[in-house]
Amino acid sequence: MKRVTLEEVARVAGVSRATASRVVNGAGTVDEVLRHAVERAISSTGYLPNIAARSLVTRRADAIGLVLPDEHRMLGDPHLGSVVSGVTRVVRPRGIHLVLMMTGPGTREQALSDLRCGRLDGVILVHTDPADPVPGQLIRAGLPVVLAGRPWQPMPITYVDVNQSAGGALAGERLLSLGCRRIATITGPQDMPTGRDRLRGFLDVVPDAVVVHGDFTRQAGMAAAHELIARCPDVDGVFAASDLMATGAIPVLHRSGRKVPDDVAVVGFDDSSAALTCEPELTTVRQPIADMAEEMARQLLRQIADRTAPVTSVVFEPSLVVRSSG
Amino acid sequence: MKRVTLEEVARVAGVSRATASRVVNGAGTVDEVLRHAVERAISSTGYLPNIAARSLVTRRADAIGLVLPDEHRMLGDPHLGSVVSGVTRVVRPRGIHLVLMMTGPGTREQALSDLRCGRLDGVILVHTDPADPVPGQLIRAGLPVVLAGRPWQPMPITYVDVNQSAGGALAGERLLSLGCRRIATITGPQDMPTGRDRLRGFLDVVPDAVVVHGDFTRQAGMAAAHELIARCPDVDGVFAASDLMATGAIPVLHRSGRKVPDDVAVVGFDDSSAALTCEPELTTVRQPIADMAEEMARQLLRQIADRTAPVTSVVFEPSLVVRSSG
Repeated sequence: MKRVTLEEVARVAGVSRATASRVVNGAGTVDEVLRHAVERAISSTGYLPNIAARSLVTRRADAIGLVLPDEHRMLGDPHLGSVVSGVTRVVRPRGIHLVLMMTGPGTREQALSDLRCGRLDGVILVHTDPADPVPGQLIRAGLPVVLAGRPWQPMPITYVDVNQSAGGALAGERLLSLGCRRIATITGPQDMPTGRDRLRGFLDVVPDAVVVHGDFTRQAGMAAAHELIARCPDVDGVFAASDLMATGAIPVLHRSGRKVPDDVAVVGFDDSSAALTCEPELTTVRQPIADMAEEMARQLLRQIADRTAPVTSVVFEPSLVVRSSG
Repeated sequence: MKRVTLEEVARVAGVSRATASRVVNGAGTVDEVLRHAVERAISSTGYLPNIAARSLVTRRADAIGLVLPDEHRMLGDPHLGSVVSGVTRVVRPRGIHLVLMMTGPGTREQALSDLRCGRLDGVILVHTDPADPVPGQLIRAGLPVVLAGRPWQPMPITYVDVNQSAGGALAGERLLSLGCRRIATITGPQDMPTGRDRLRGFLDVVPDAVVVHGDFTRQAGMAAAHELIARCPDVDGVFAASDLMATGAIPVLHRSGRKVPDDVAVVGFDDSSAALTCEPELTTVRQPIADMAEEMARQLLRQIADRTAPVTSVVFEPSLVVRSSG
């Protein structure tokens, strides 16, 4: 079960190492009889070609990177599993490795250097910081990259997103259709496109909503619910712009004596695993994360295959998932 | 920003490509003056050595695999983020790639073949199926592998685990110290060491506990709570052998009119992110997952550096985290 070497293959086939190597690397200049002998030796010995050697010929690492936001954010992120399985579904059948990189000191620089020196063929970047220079550097270097989510400022980069403002509108329509009259929203960060767009779409439908700001975390949902109860005690409908914020807000509403959904209807956003561990289970706006991640992987492979492929952005439509909270 | 080639480095340095290559690959046989010229050319051009080429020399991929259970299990697994960040903390500073592989058709075979052909230096295997032949194959092939969790049957393989039975005992002691008199447990799968050991440790402390079987999932926690209420309506303490099962059981207890923790104290196991999204927040037995993952990475790197390193198992101690549920 030890790794079989090319020398052994050559010995079994009765050819020189150079000939065995030419067969393994697909050179067309090998005599037919010798080629068959080498192929038989490859299968009888269980030889697997050294990929590092093949990489030298193809100039491909057959590996892509998934660069995630910082550790702290990711640990609480209920989407990670879906993103990984979506990307895996596309790359696994092609024998391409998915390399996971978490943002930390030097990670993005490492991704850039891995791309330049051929350890990675491309990266999917989960973009969280508008000041991050890496997307711009990747574009200027002509390196294959796909962003998860719309970029902060317009730039010629391929991205995959969900129609965030349409999702905000779906949440507003749901609360109106339930007959809510005193409607509030707990927003995401307003310096992120996701946070801004969800709020904009929601306000298009419920222009007089009470607005309390949050940052997508559970803690922010708790703090916002306290603020909301103080500012607007007769609130009867809440759109939390992330499921995590909804799971923070609901216990606070319960403790203040307001039952969800009887006294206050709550609609979340994401349809992440948090929506199901919530009590009551969350009515929420669904982002098809695994499908979006599959599309990111496909877009990246397209760029790797053709460096001149045009920039493409794919925007998925959200849908409302009705459960018990609103 | 295009990738600088070795040819350019050689041209800038005024040496042959072969000389430049010998410097890049650390050969000691290069004239000192020429070596300085090549090093200056490397920094002035921004050249990064082709890792595939270096791999051929070192016989290392500088990549390790993390082979996870099947997609379905992993999507609901609140530990994934902690495992990834623990492993990352060890491998990132060493420039080693973490390749994520999810069990699916052919994944484990692919991991094995990646190891044999040098695309991976070793794997961390999250072991879920006692019939899985891969751990045995890896051991027989002498390939570097670390198991997350004790193996199903004794085998000479390095693993990292938490003292599961001590954790079960901690949960039992907590319920007794709260004055619970009618105590039950919802177990993990009894064909898994984790499930068996947590139950065994718990029963050592509470030998007359009512036992209801589950499989670590939230759904199982809900079903078990229904069964428990029917079989043992005066239950006043429950040890759920996973946080997810506790998050399933608590709403069922609430709906039956039993308040947690006033009427029934509930203790979970894991201290995963699910413990915090639960209402009330879970008292639970903590596994130091990120520290355990760091240790797995360190054990694997040790084996990669020295194929004859002895088999070592590291068992961490659990601790009780007291929150609101029990």
